[in-house]
Amino acid sequence: MQVTRGQISLFLCLLSCASSLGTRYTPDWASLDARPIPEWYDEVKFGIFVHWGVFSVPAFGSEWFWWYWKGAQNPNYIQFMTKNYPPGFSYTDFAPEFHAQFFDPDEMADIFEASGAKYVVLTNKHHEGFTNWGSPYSWNWNSVDNGPHRDLVADLGAAIRKRSLHYGLYNSLYEWFNPIYLSDKQSGFKTRDYVEKKAMPELYELVNRYKPDLIWSDGDWEAPDTYWNSTGFLAWLYNDSPVKDVVVTNDRWGLGCYCKHGGYYNCADKFTPGKLPDHKWEKCQSVDTISWGYRRNMKLSELMDLPSIIKDMVYVVALGGNYLLNVGPTSDGMIAPVFEERLRGIGAWLKVNGEAIYATKPWRVQAENATVPVWYTSKSSTVYAIFTSNPMQNSFKLLTPKTSYNTVVNI
Amino acid sequence: MQVTRGQISLFLCLLSCASSLGTRYTPDWASLDARPIPEWYDEVKFGIFVHWGVFSVPAFGSEWFWWYWKGAQNPNYIQFMTKNYPPGFSYTDFAPEFHAQFFDPDEMADIFEASGAKYVVLTNKHHEGFTNWGSPYSWNWNSVDNGPHRDLVADLGAAIRKRSLHYGLYNSLYEWFNPIYLSDKQSGFKTRDYVEKKAMPELYELVNRYKPDLIWSDGDWEAPDTYWNSTGFLAWLYNDSPVKDVVVTNDRWGLGCYCKHGGYYNCADKFTPGKLPDHKWEKCQSVDTISWGYRRNMKLSELMDLPSIIKDMVYVVALGGNYLLNVGPTSDGMIAPVFEERLRGIGAWLKVNGEAIYATKPWRVQAENATVPVWYTSKSSTVYAIFTSNPMQNSFKLLTPKTSYNTVVNI
Amino acid sequence: MQVTRGQISLFLCLLSCASSLGTRYTPDWASLDARPIPEWYDEVKFGIFVHWGVFSVPAFGSEWFWWYWKGAQNPNYIQFMTKNYPPGFSYTDFAPEFHAQFFDPDEMADIFEASGAKYVVLTNKHHEGFTNWGSPYSWNWNSVDNGPHRDLVADLGAAIRKRSLHYGLYNSLYEWFNPIYLSDKQSGFKTRDYVEKKAMPELYELVNRYKPDLIWSDGDWEAPDTYWNSTGFLAWLYNDSPVKDVVVTNDRWGLGCYCKHGGYYNCADKFTPGKLPDHKWEKCQSVDTISWGYRRNMKLSELMDLPSIIKDMVYVVALGGNYLLNVGPTSDGMIAPVFEERLRGIGAWLKVNGEAIYATKPWRVQAENATVPVWYTSKSSTVYAIFTSNPMQNSFKLLTPKTSYNTVVNI
Amino acid sequence: MQVTRGQISLFLCLLSCASSLGTRYTPDWASLDARPIPEWYDEVKFGIFVHWGVFSVPAFGSEWFWWYWKGAQNPNYIQFMTKNYPPGFSYTDFAPEFHAQFFDPDEMADIFEASGAKYVVLTNKHHEGFTNWGSPYSWNWNSVDNGPHRDLVADLGAAIRKRSLHYGLYNSLYEWFNPIYLSDKQSGFKTRDYVEKKAMPELYELVNRYKPDLIWSDGDWEAPDTYWNSTGFLAWLYNDSPVKDVVVTNDRWGLGCYCKHGGYYNCADKFTPGKLPDHKWEKCQSVDTISWGYRRNMKLSELMDLPSIIKDMVYVVALGGNYLLNVGPTSDGMIAPVFEERLRGIGAWLKVNGEAIYATKPWRVQAENATVPVWYTSKSSTVYAIFTSNPMQNSFKLLTPKTSYNTVVNI
Repeated sequence: MQVTRGQISLFLCLLSCASSLGTRYTPDWASLDARPIPEWYDEVKFGIFVHWGVFSVPAFGSEWFWWYWKGAQNPNYIQFMTKNYPPGFSYTDFAPEFHAQFFDPDEMADIFEASGAKYVVLTNKHHEGFTNWGSPYSWNWNSVDNGPHRDLVADLGAAIRKRSLHYGLYNSLYEWFNPIYLSDKQSGFKTRDYVEKKAMPELYELVNRYKPDLIWSDGDWEAPDTYWNSTGFLAWLYNDSPVKDVVVTNDRWGLGCYCKHGGYYNCADKFTPGKLPDHKWEKCQSVDTISWGYRRNMKLSELMDLPSIIKDMVYVVALGGNYLLNVGPTSDGMIAPVFEERLRGIGAWLKVNGEAIYATKPWRVQAENATVPVWYTSKSSTVYAIFTSNPMQNSFKLLTPKTSYNTVVNI
Repeated sequence: MQVTRGQISLFLCLLSCASSLGTRYTPDWASLDARPIPEWYDEVKFGIFVHWGVFSVPAFGSEWFWWYWKGAQNPNYIQFMTKNYPPGFSYTDFAPEFHAQFFDPDEMADIFEASGAKYVVLTNKHHEGFTNWGSPYSWNWNSVDNGPHRDLVADLGAAIRKRSLHYGLYNSLYEWFNPIYLSDKQSGFKTRDYVEKKAMPELYELVNRYKPDLIWSDGDWEAPDTYWNSTGFLAWLYNDSPVKDVVVTNDRWGLGCYCKHGGYYNCADKFTPGKLPDHKWEKCQSVDTISWGYRRNMKLSELMDLPSIIKDMVYVVALGGNYLLNVGPTSDGMIAPVFEERLRGIGAWLKVNGEAIYATKPWRVQAENATVPVWYTSKSSTVYAIFTSNPMQNSFKLLTPKTSYNTVVNI
Repeated sequence: MQVTRGQISLFLCLLSCASSLGTRYTPDWASLDARPIPEWYDEVKFGIFVHWGVFSVPAFGSEWFWWYWKGAQNPNYIQFMTKNYPPGFSYTDFAPEFHAQFFDPDEMADIFEASGAKYVVLTNKHHEGFTNWGSPYSWNWNSVDNGPHRDLVADLGAAIRKRSLHYGLYNSLYEWFNPIYLSDKQSGFKTRDYVEKKAMPELYELVNRYKPDLIWSDGDWEAPDTYWNSTGFLAWLYNDSPVKDVVVTNDRWGLGCYCKHGGYYNCADKFTPGKLPDHKWEKCQSVDTISWGYRRNMKLSELMDLPSIIKDMVYVVALGGNYLLNVGPTSDGMIAPVFEERLRGIGAWLKVNGEAIYATKPWRVQAENATVPVWYTSKSSTVYAIFTSNPMQNSFKLLTPKTSYNTVVNI
Repeated sequence: MQVTRGQISLFLCLLSCASSLGTRYTPDWASLDARPIPEWYDEVKFGIFVHWGVFSVPAFGSEWFWWYWKGAQNPNYIQFMTKNYPPGFSYTDFAPEFHAQFFDPDEMADIFEASGAKYVVLTNKHHEGFTNWGSPYSWNWNSVDNGPHRDLVADLGAAIRKRSLHYGLYNSLYEWFNPIYLSDKQSGFKTRDYVEKKAMPELYELVNRYKPDLIWSDGDWEAPDTYWNSTGFLAWLYNDSPVKDVVVTNDRWGLGCYCKHGGYYNCADKFTPGKLPDHKWEKCQSVDTISWGYRRNMKLSELMDLPSIIKDMVYVVALGGNYLLNVGPTSDGMIAPVFEERLRGIGAWLKVNGEAIYATKPWRVQAENATVPVWYTSKSSTVYAIFTSNPMQNSFKLLTPKTSYNTVVNI
C-alpha cells in the first residue's frame, strides 16, 4: 500500500542535518547531546545483541550469575553451586571451561546476516570484567589468556564486517567485584583509581583497536558521569577517535544519564515507549525472556516465539526505534538451533516485508486498531501499513490514510 | 470426511484374534513369529525415541562417537579429540561429565506427553555398553556408579507411566569394545561367553526389574540369533516374564532376522516401505537427521522441521506403521528447546487431527495425488483423508472414495 | 664371625627335597600344603611390596579409602570428600586422575634393585577391583581402559625381570562393592556367580598372561575356601600352570586358611612371631605405618626410619621369615624421595651386610641380649651375629656361640 | 673450644651503631646503603625460603615453568604439555588445581621451627605474577580469587609469628608476561605504567598489610632501578613504613644493583664468596638442586642430603653470611617428607651445635684444613671450631687458635 505524502523531509533534518560540520564537541552534555546520530543507525532498524562471557559456562539463571551467587547471595544460585560443585569453587574456576571450541565466526555471522539484522553488538566485557579480547588491563581475566585463548572481539568482528554489517561493542563500565572499583565505591566515588587505571585505558584501547561502529555502554548507574569522566571520553570519541564520524552510542554514561544524555536512548532494559518519542531510541530484547546469557536449562515456554518477536519489532520501528534482539551463544561457541530458527524466521519475514522496515521513518500515525491492529511506517512519499494477525474477513479497512486520485495501493 | 465401509473387521482379526489363548511359545521362529502383537501397540501410532548415554557428553558427530573414533578411526573424530582433549584421554573419561544435573523426569515426560506420543523408548544401553541403570553386570560402567549417579531407566519410567504412556527400552545386544564380546567374535561366535555372562543375564534382569512394555532390540547383526539365543529369550519373554501379555518387540534378533522375524518390523533404520506392508512395522526417525544422540554443534539446517515430521508421520500411519521420533537429551538432562518445539508442535497438530491417526487402520488406498497429495487412514466405517499442503484452490477433489447417499463429509 | 656347624642339611631338605618329583597335587589342603616352597623364595629374604591403584589418586587415609568412605562411612573420609569434591562425586570419578604420567618402569625398578630386594610384588588388583592391566573381566575398570591407559602389570614386570628380580602379583579375591560378589555374599555364599564369572577367570588369565613367580592372595576372609575354589585353583597352579615349578603363594585362600594352609604364611598383616616358626613365613610391613597406598598428606613422624626398618628386617630374617617392605607410588607414577631414601639406605646396608641375610637359615639361637641386642643367622657352617645398636664399649660379648680351636671370627 | 679475644666490638658497631638515630634517608643509594642492617638479621643466621605458587601445580621442571614453556619455548616443557594436556591449555588453567587443601599453617610452621631456622621467607609473588594474597592489583590472579581461595601470606605469617620467628616476603618486581610490563619494556622502559599501576601500589600495600620483617626483592634485572623507583620505595620503607625499624632487604633493586646496593647482598642465586666479604650477605640454596618450586618427579639424587646442607650452612656462617634454605610445598599444601627430614635433621644438629652458629661473628680466620677441614665462628671471647667430617684419628689439631694460660677448651 502506497500513500503519497510530503512532510517527511523536516523530520529527517532533525536527525542528521547537523552532522559532519567539522565543529568540535566540548566535554559537556550540552555539546555532546547536540551531536546528530550518524544516519546509518536510524536506517538499519534491526540488530543482534550477543551476550557471551564466562557466565556462558555455568549457563544457569542469567548472565548476572556471579552477582546473584556472591553479591545477592540468592538461594537458588547458592544451591546450584552447592549441589554441583566442590566447596571453594569460585567464579574464576569457570573460565577454563569457556572453550568456544565450535566457534566459527563465519557460521555465526551467517546466521546473524540471515536474520536481516544490519548490526551486531557483542559484549566486549560484561559486569564480570572478563574481556573477550586480550585486554592488557585485564591480564589473566580475558578470552586470550583464559578459556577460548582467542580474540573473540576481533574474530567475530572480521566476519561481521565481511558481510557489511555494522559492528558494535557492549562495554560495562563497572565490574561488580573488581577490588579497585569497590575501593572507589567505598570512598563514595571520591577516588577514581578504577577509572584511571582500568576502565578508561581499556575503553580507549578497545576503540582504537577494534574501531566499533557503536558503543553500547552499561554498568554506569552506581556512579555519576563525573566519576566515569564520560563526557571526556565522548568528546574524544566524537572529535578524535578513529570512529568519530561513524560511531553511535547509547545513553548509559552515569547515574541519571539514561533517557537524557548521550546518543540514542535505551532507557531501561526492554523499555518500550507508549507513544512516539522525540529522540532516537532502541529497544533491546532477549529471545530468552529470562536471561541475556545462554542458559543450559532454558525451556521453550520461557522463549519468545517468532510472531511475538516480529510484532515487537514492528511496534518498535513504527515508533521510531531500533530493535536489538539478543541471543546468548553457548560456551562451546554455538548459537542454539532454537535461536537460529527465530533469527532465520525474522530474516524470512524481512525478505518479504523489509521494505516497510529498513530506512523507514515513523508516519503521522503509528498504529490504529480497525479490522485488526495495524502499524504504520513510511519512506518519503510511501506509507506502509503492517498487520501481523490474519484479518479473517474478506474486506479490511484502514482508518488513517487519506487517499487521493493518485494514491496507489499495493498489497 | 466420512465414508461408509465394512471390510475392516477381517484385517483387525489378523492382527489380534489369536492373542491370550494361553498357548505357550516354543523357542523357534515359527512359534514366536506367530504371536500376535499386543493391540495397544498398533493403536498408539506415535512414540518418542530417546538416545541418551555417555555419547551425550562429547555430543559430537553421533552416538556412534566411540566407534567412529576408535573403531573406524574416522579422521574427523580423531581430529576433534586431538584438538580438544589431552593425549591418552579415553572414552571412559567422558563418563564423569555425564552429570544429568538438570534432569527432571516429570518435565521431560511432560514434553513427551505434550507431543501426543503414546509410548517412549529409552536407550537402556547403547553399543557403548554403558547402562542407564545400575546393572550388576556392568559394574562401574553405568549411570549409578558413574556420571549421573542415578537410575535413569527407573526415574524416567516412573514419570512416563504416571502419564499413562507406554514405556519401552532400547537394548543393544552387542557392545563394540567389550573384550569378552570381542573374544567371542574372534572365535567366529563359537564361544558364547559374552552372551552367557553379560548380555543375557543383564537383559533378563532388565525385564524383571523394569517391566518394559516394549523391547527395542539392536546391535544384533554381527552374529546369528543362535549366538544370542534370541529365541530362548523371546520364548521366556512371551511365556513367563512379568510382561508376557503386554510386551512388544521388534525384529533385530540376529543376523538376517530383521524384516523377517520377531515382533513388528523395523527393518533398517529409517526404513520406509513403498506400499502397504503385510506385517506391522515401525519407522524410527530422528529430528536431528545426522545423529540419534545429542550434538552440541548441530545446526538448524540439519534438523527436520515440523511440517516434514508431520508429513512423515502421516505417510507412515497411512501405510500401517508406527512412527518413533527420536530426540537426544543433553548430558545435562535437558531436551533442547528446538526439539521441544517440534514435539509440542506435533502435539498441537494431533490435538486437532489425532482422530485420523490414533487407533486407525490403513484404508483400501493409502495415498493419492489429485489436487494435492492426500493420505488415507480409517477407523471402522470412517475414512480420513489427510493433506498437509494447502490446496490453494477453491475446490478440492478426492479420487478414491466412493460416496453414496448416506456418505457424510466433515471438514 | 664364623662358627663351624653341621646340622643345617636336614632343615633344608624339609623345605625343598620333595620338589620337582613330577607328582600331581590333588585339590585338597593335605596335598597342596605338602608342596615344598620353591627354594628361590627362602633365599631372597627381602622384597618390595607395591600398592598402586585408584586409591593412589585421593591418596588420603589409606588404600582402603573407598571402604572407609562408603562402606564404614568413616566421618574423616566423608568430611574429606564433602570439603574437597562436589556432591555426587563417586569413587569411579577418581580413575581419570590416575595419570601415571611420570611412570618410568626402569627408573622404578632401579630403585627397587638398589634396595637389595630380590623380589617385587605389585598389586594387580586391590579390593577396589581395579586391575592394573586390561582384564577383559574388568572392562572399563582397569588401567588400560581408564586412567594410565597402560598395562602397568606388564610394564613394571618387564623392568623387574630385566634386573633378574622375581616378580609377584598381589591379587584380592573379593571386591568390596562388586554387585555380583555382594549378591553371592547375600546368599550366604551359596551362589558363586562372582567366582565363576569374575574372580577365577581373571586370576587364571593373570597367571597365564604374566607368569608371576609369586601370588600374594588377599581379600579371602569373608568366604570359605570352598566358595573361592582355592584348592582347585592351586592344584592347577601347581600342576599345569606355566609357573608350576617356580610359583610361590601365601596363605590367604579363604576364611580360616591363614597361618594354616597354602604356601608360606603371612598370617595377619605385619604379623611377627615371637619365636622361630616351623613354617616358612613372610612379614609384610609398610614404610608409611598408616597406609599401604600413597598418602599425599603423610608426615615424617608417621614413617618408619631407616634404622627401624633394618632392625625389623634383621629380626624377621633371624626368625626364618622374608621381609616384604611396602611403598606406594604416587598417582603420577613416582616413588616419593623419602621412600627412595629408605630403599637406597637398605641397599647400602645390604651391600655391606647382605652376606648375613641372603640365603641364610635361622641359627640354633635367633637372638640374645648381652652387651647389646644381637640377632643370629647362619649359612652352612657360618654363623652371623648382627647388631644394629652401637656397643659403645670397647669389648663386646656374644653368649651363645661356642667356639673351638678352628673357629674364625671376622668383624 | 674457647679462646679469649677482644676485637669484636668494633665490628658490631659497623653493623648497628647508626640505627634508630632518627635521621631520615634520602632516595639515593648513598643514603640508603648507609642504613645499618637491623641486628636481628645477623643473629638469626638460618632461614627457610618457601617457593609456592601456581608453578607448584605442574610441579615440573622448575618454578620457571611458564617461562621455559612459553618464553624460552624449551622443548622439554613443550613436550610435557603436549603429552599431558589438551591443546590450548594455558598456564592460567593450572590455577584452579592449586588447592592447598592440606595446608595447615601451624603444621608447616612447626616443621620450620623444628629446623632451627629463625626466619621464613615466603614468595608473596613470583615472576608469574600470581599473588599469594588477595592483591587488589592482581584481581583474579591471586590465591584468594583463585585456587586455594585463601590468604596464604596472612595464614602462614600468623603461624610463623606465633613461634617468634621472623617473617619475610619474597617479591618479584617484574612479571614475565604482564602485558603492561611488556609494553614498558618495549618502550625501553621509558614508560613506567607497570610500576605505577601495578608493581609499586601492590608492594606498598603488601608492606602495610603484612608488615614483613624482610623483603626479598627479585626480578629486577631487566630494568634500571630508576624504572622501578627502588630508591623511592626504600626511602619510604626505611623512613615511614610500619616496619621502618625492623625491616631488612636484599640487593635486587634494578639492573646492576646486586652485590652493590640495598641491604644485605645476595648477589647471584646460590652465590658463595671465596673469602670473608666486607658486607653482610646471604646465600640462598634449595634442597632440590634443580628447582626452587616443588617438582612431582624429583629424584633423590637431585636433592641435597643432610650432611651437604650442614656443611654448606657452616661454611656460609663462618664467612659471615646467612643461610636461606629453600623448600617448595606441594600444591596440596604439604612439605614433602623428604624435605621435612632434612629440616628436622638440621634442627637436631643445631640443637647440639647451635651455640656455634646463632649470633656468632666471623672469626679472625674462617677456615683451615689441618687434620680435617675446620670452620671457625666466634661470639665475644669465644671461638668455635666446627668440623663435619670424622677425624678418624685419635688426636686432632687446630692450627690457628693461639692459646694462653686462661684458654679453656670444651668439646
